[in-house]
Parts: sequence; structure tokens; C-alpha cells
Amino acid sequence: MSYINAGDTVMLSDMNWKDAVTLASPYPYLLVTSRDAKNVPNAMGLGWWSFTSMTPPLLVISIGKGRYTLECIRHTKDFVACFPGKDIAKESWSCGVLSGRDGDKLEKLGLKTIDSKKVKSPIIDGSCVAFECVVTDEMETGDHILFVGEIVAMHGDVEKPQHLYSVFYSKLVCLDNEGNRNFFLEFK
Amino acid sequence: MSYINAGDTVMLSDMNWKDAVTLASPYPYLLVTSRDAKNVPNAMGLGWWSFTSMTPPLLVISIGKGRYTLECIRHTKDFVACFPGKDIAKESWSCGVLSGRDGDKLEKLGLKTIDSKKVKSPIIDGSCVAFECVVTDEMETGDHILFVGEIVAMHGDVEKPQHLYSVFYSKLVCLDNEGNRNFFLEFK
Repeated sequence: MSYINAGDTVMLSDMNWKDAVTLASPYPYLLVTSRDAKNVPNAMGLGWWSFTSMTPPLLVISIGKGRYTLECIRHTKDFVACFPGKDIAKESWSCGVLSGRDGDKLEKLGLKTIDSKKVKSPIIDGSCVAFECVVTDEMETGDHILFVGEIVAMHGDVEKPQHLYSVFYSKLVCLDNEGNRNFFLEFK
Repeated sequence: MSYINAGDTVMLSDMNWKDAVTLASPYPYLLVTSRDAKNVPNAMGLGWWSFTSMTPPLLVISIGKGRYTLECIRHTKDFVACFPGKDIAKESWSCGVLSGRDGDKLEKLGLKTIDSKKVKSPIIDGSCVAFECVVTDEMETGDHILFVGEIVAMHGDVEKPQHLYSVFYSKLVCLDNEGNRNFFLEFK
């Protein structure tokens, strides 16, 4: 083990990817929706996203190269970044585990969709914030494709500021927007 | 006000950017380090970042077009994504407010640096996780530049899993990696 002397407060040591990413957790967890070529709605769970511009409002999401969502987003050329609320926590986790390639994932999980206002991809019922996005650009980033989405509509419920955060493939944490924890679910 | 009927659980309404981004908060807050042409270390606070690939390990950060850090990162061609711990919360916030263009920001704030192992940009003392990154690509995203960084070294302290999260220019929240809140600071 190799250490970096980081003063009085912290002793930093070399870390592997899993430990470092876990330590940097939790991240706000998204359900990213799209539609396949048959117009069937699809969603995947992901934690690798970020806002990237205010004017125009843009956000980026990273989709693994083998994922069904990649085909779907290239089909719809839009997506919705949904922040799932606490009532759909377990279903949201399963969204990150199942593949839409094997049939209608949302129907299997009992997740309902709401039509978006400006894009073809739907909003997941039970989201507390949702950003409708039109794809404006994409870039290959290692084993993922990074999509840039222009936010064309935003919805939310200020009375329900709790949404889910993920800890590297192991937990979902439910926090409000001041960091108060409602609960956490462990998946092992 | 326009509503979307989102079932029993949530009633979604149209939102503006500030409200929607606040509702989607908090985000893990970074101090991104670099060096200027005179080798003076620099750091800025930012919440707009994401991992984007596992093999190779990559992350992206978004830097506003007018920011001093933009010049510095183009100079060093590397940066360190530092996750500030609770002991440097106030200094970390100030890092997001002051500009390195006006002199050595870190010295002013009393923030110390540690030499990185593989890159020129330093690590901020008091970080509980730090990712040393070499810039491999960049992309214009609206009013920001998105840098892709290949993670060439990772450090952390598993005994101190608490780091800071930001709420849209108003608060910093300190959470551990299971979402337990240590404290929050309000800046107004």
C-alpha cells in the first residue's frame, strides 16, 4: 500500500476503481427513457450524468456501448432524464438490472409512463423531477457513448424533493435536496 | 402553471431552470485543480462532472468558458478531481467564488496542496478521494467546455467517507457514502 501524506486531516492511500468510486458515492440516480423502433417505451437506470451548460440548458448522459438504450436513443434522438422518487425505488433499481432487449421492461416492473410535452420519449410516473432532452451531439468516451441533450422542458414537484442516489452497484439512497436521508436499500 | 398528471404519487408541474436544478440537487462537489503558466496551483469548485467509462477509467468535467481554470487546464493538460472533506468545507465553497486570475487563490484561502503522483496538477489537502486525470479530449457544450480526463491514479481514505455536495449556488451538504448527513452550510 502506498500513502500520500495529506496533512493532519486525511491520509490518502492508493485505491482501486471500485473502492474509489464507492467512496465518491452516492450519485443522483436517473431513469433515462427512450423508445425502440416499435415505439415501445424503455428506461435504464444510470448514475453517470451531469449538467453541462446553462445557456442553452444542456446535460450529458453516458450509455454503455452494449446497452439497448443506445439503440433506442439513436432511434428517438431524444430522451427524458427522470429522477425517480421514493415510491418507485425498487422498480428503479430493477430498471438498471433488466434489459429492454428482452421485452417491455416497464410493463414487467409495473412502471407507468406519462407522455412528455416536447419529445417522443416518455416520463416515468413517480419521478419527482424530469428533464425532456433532444440529442444535439454525441462523443465516444471509452466503453460508453456520451450524449449531449438540450433540455427543452422541465417538470417537477417542489413538495416532493426526495429522489434516489446510487452507490456503485450496491445501494440506493433516498435523499431530499438538503441531504436528509429518508432510507436506503441494499442490493446484494 | 401547467401540470402533468403523474398518477397518485406526484403531480409534476412545469419548472424553470433554477427550481428544477435545485430540486435535482445535491450533487457531489469537486475541487478541480490545475496550474497556470507560472506553475501556480489553482482550484475551482464545480458540481458538473461525471464518470463516463470504466475501461479505460474516464471522467468528464464542465468548465465555464470564461473561467481561469479553462486556461490552466489547457496549459497543464491534466487536472485532479478532488472530493473535499468536511474540514475544508468553507474554503471549498470560497474556491467556487474567487478567481485564480486575481492571485494565488489557494494561498489566500489557506488551502494546502500535495504533489500528485502522475500529473502536474496537485491534490488539495483535506480531500477524502482524489482522481488524477490526463486530458484526452474536449468538446464544446453550450457555454462550457467539457473535458474528458483519463484517470491515471486514484487515492482515498476509506476511514473518511464524508464529502461535500452542492445545492445550486446556495448550500453545501456533507454526506458519507451511505447518505448520512453530517452537516450543511448555507451561503446567502
